Amino acid sequence: MRSIFFKEGVLFALDSSRLPHKEVWLRLRSARQVASAIREMRIRGAPLIGVAAAYGLALDALKYRGNDANRLRDRVLKTSEYLRSVRPTGRNLSWAIDRCLKAIEKEDTVNGVKKRLLEEAEKIADEDVETNLKIANNGLEIIMDGDRILTHCNTGGLGTVEYGTALGIIRVAWEKGRKIFVIATETRPLLQGARLTAWELKKYGIPFKLICDSMAGYVMSKGMIDKVLVGADRILATGHVANKIGTLTLSILAKHYGIPFYVAAPLSTFDLTTKPEEIPIEERSQKEVTHFLGKLITVKDVEAMNPAFDITPPELVSGIITEKGIIRRPYSENIPKFYQQQF
Amino acid sequence: MRSIFFKEGVLFALDSSRLPHKEVWLRLRSARQVASAIREMRIRGAPLIGVAAAYGLALDALKYRGNDANRLRDRVLKTSEYLRSVRPTGRNLSWAIDRCLKAIEKEDTVNGVKKRLLEEAEKIADEDVETNLKIANNGLEIIMDGDRILTHCNTGGLGTVEYGTALGIIRVAWEKGRKIFVIATETRPLLQGARLTAWELKKYGIPFKLICDSMAGYVMSKGMIDKVLVGADRILATGHVANKIGTLTLSILAKHYGIPFYVAAPLSTFDLTTKPEEIPIEERSQKEVTHFLGKLITVKDVEAMNPAFDITPPELVSGIITEKGIIRRPYSENIPKFYQQQF
Repeated sequence: MRSIFFKEGVLFALDSSRLPHKEVWLRLRSARQVASAIREMRIRGAPLIGVAAAYGLALDALKYRGNDANRLRDRVLKTSEYLRSVRPTGRNLSWAIDRCLKAIEKEDTVNGVKKRLLEEAEKIADEDVETNLKIANNGLEIIMDGDRILTHCNTGGLGTVEYGTALGIIRVAWEKGRKIFVIATETRPLLQGARLTAWELKKYGIPFKLICDSMAGYVMSKGMIDKVLVGADRILATGHVANKIGTLTLSILAKHYGIPFYVAAPLSTFDLTTKPEEIPIEERSQKEVTHFLGKLITVKDVEAMNPAFDITPPELVSGIITEKGIIRRPYSENIPKFYQQQF
Repeated sequence: MRSIFFKEGVLFALDSSRLPHKEVWLRLRSARQVASAIREMRIRGAPLIGVAAAYGLALDALKYRGNDANRLRDRVLKTSEYLRSVRPTGRNLSWAIDRCLKAIEKEDTVNGVKKRLLEEAEKIADEDVETNLKIANNGLEIIMDGDRILTHCNTGGLGTVEYGTALGIIRVAWEKGRKIFVIATETRPLLQGARLTAWELKKYGIPFKLICDSMAGYVMSKGMIDKVLVGADRILATGHVANKIGTLTLSILAKHYGIPFYVAAPLSTFDLTTKPEEIPIEERSQKEVTHFLGKLITVKDVEAMNPAFDITPPELVSGIITEKGIIRRPYSENIPKFYQQQF
């Protein structure tokens, strides 16, 4: 089951913010609606955001009623800038938009632009599924029978078109008969682990336990974790990994206890030009921290921090699992090599 | 303002579970009510639990209507075993109970036992306040002007009779004019940081920001933390520190970033006979993790772990601030020395 698909002029997307209690399908009819859904974390997960943005551009183009291809391209370009700004940290959003804009560069008819944009969005979505299956198969190399795997946030079929990255590996390993056990962090503030990863693991029948983020050190100290496996929102040429807030903490704990720490991501998450200190870290509303289910959980007017991502340095990453294979150290040599093979 | 006091046969205690939204004073009239209040985390914080248990024994004795001092002592002993079992990890609970039992060893009248138990409870409560002020003054040595201090859980006036341990140091440092800034972790699952520490810091006018537990690595990586300062529920002769779940994670992060990690606790928290692997770690209800404000936050029937404490090894502790001064490494030499001076 895909978590996003296009049908008869409407983009359908499973609303992550309502899960696990309700399975609500969003019906998106404009780029603006797509942007809102991304901003409000109804559509989340770096790869899925990229796919949604590509469909968003197609929706925008399809609305155009004129007959000037250049004007339409200008309109799409303007919309793309708006979409790009919605969630700055993840790489796939910009990657997908760039790819769509490139696809229409040489289209000189309105219908051509419309057709190409929709085709490109569908292609990006299809490729996401294929890519995830390749990542999953490459990841099998590091999953042993009996492994107890700690994962963070949600990196499954709900954060991609299908299967997922880190959770895709876990799912395929389970389907191939590896007897694994998952420890899922709840992932405050928005609880993607408790809400989404738990929902997926339950659906696939994979045994797991939920922990609060603060319990990660405890479970590692008790020898209960064999591997940490997470996704990524942006990976630099140096091997720096931007991912959901809390990932850095897990990587430091894993290092302390000598536990392998793996990242799984498609090559579309890689960004070979930005420097670590230049990665924009999205600071989301303080309300996500100070409130819970709409209720204030602290004193009135308390200030909170809410960085949505952190950056794990390459020395804490044991390997990066991509659709082309596992990238190992030294990253600054090997990442550009892998990347150039692909594009 | 004391968070616990005895008046006209009733033990008044501020209900921590209702804060910060409501200031509810519990009126406890029996040891069983005291035990329930401790189990339900209405009374929490290792030192405060000790004080409450001492008052609980006094309440129990006061209920006795017979005139056999030995029978009364047996009754108190039985009650003390029950109280001891309510929260196994913290040391102060057993320490206070032992002290009360010792106080009545030679009392041979019913009225004598009753009087001595209440006196001892009052004494333990009074000493807690004095001790905390001494800890605070000793702690001033490590607090520099401009320090940005990360603290975990609640170690303030709400977890002790007054002032607190780690938060007591912060409060007194602020009152003495040190311009400090606090980063308080929310402390899942029961949010003692968001609910109680925030409430206290706001009341004292100390500037602070709230973070989710998973953000600790991020704030340290950004150079935003000069010191970590936490409390303790049990400290061993080796320097192992049992404290609120998440403390171990913070200590490993602090080590990774070269940030001093201090523990503040009275000598009544020390346990010189138990070995690290023998510390009982209380596993609380899974519901505290899977539910929030009474509402399920994950999928139905998900299993969760809920260890309430973890153990930080001595090599991660920069110093232990007590009422007798700061204990430094090597702990296995210096802790017994400090402890013997006291008792």
